[in-house]
Amino acid sequence: MARRTYVISGKVEIDELLFRQSDGLIPVVAQERRSQRVLMVAFANYDALEHTLASGYAHYYSRSRSEIWKKGAGSGNTQRVSAVLVDCDADALLYIVDQQGSGACHTGAYSCFYRQLQ
Amino acid sequence: MARRTYVISGKVEIDELLFRQSDGLIPVVAQERRSQRVLMVAFANYDALEHTLASGYAHYYSRSRSEIWKKGAGSGNTQRVSAVLVDCDADALLYIVDQQGSGACHTGAYSCFYRQLQ
Repeated sequence: MARRTYVISGKVEIDELLFRQSDGLIPVVAQERRSQRVLMVAFANYDALEHTLASGYAHYYSRSRSEIWKKGAGSGNTQRVSAVLVDCDADALLYIVDQQGSGACHTGAYSCFYRQLQ
Repeated sequence: MARRTYVISGKVEIDELLFRQSDGLIPVVAQERRSQRVLMVAFANYDALEHTLASGYAHYYSRSRSEIWKKGAGSGNTQRVSAVLVDCDADALLYIVDQQGSGACHTGAYSCFYRQLQ
């Protein structure tokens, strides 16, 4: 389990997180628990994070649609969240997930990171 | 090697990346090649990324200091970059790194993600 590779030495409450003042968002990395692949990077606002914690499924905030979305609500490619880790500055999150369905990327790729920079 | 867990099916040039219009930055996830741990999330601008590609060592852009920094320049905790992956929207990067020294976090933790959200 990916979480075991992290040494957890503290706890954080949601109200301690630093959502950006400009847009109220915090970047989120989704990492697959078993393969440890980084699947995607997206953003959450306070409400999206609350939905994630309450439901156990990854929710994000869409900047283009200006709304919360449950990952995979339409496609079935949901992400079960087993832990939410917080970085040292409390301004980035790591969702440890079990990816359901055919993958995380809307292109059909399993991870959104399928291209390499030259 | 973490990169082997990713299926690479395309190449991207630096000029195709979507640096944010508001601040010219792109979020970067640093993942350790061997352990596959996510070590940190930071930001790069165009110049920081060019320095990374040219030197083979992770460079980021510090928003608080408004300058490019080479990770570990002072501490020795540098990050050798073996690949830079790009996500589907070309608006997030994944540095696959070999962490040198005692870890990535300024707190002394190996990964910046050492706390769990309640």
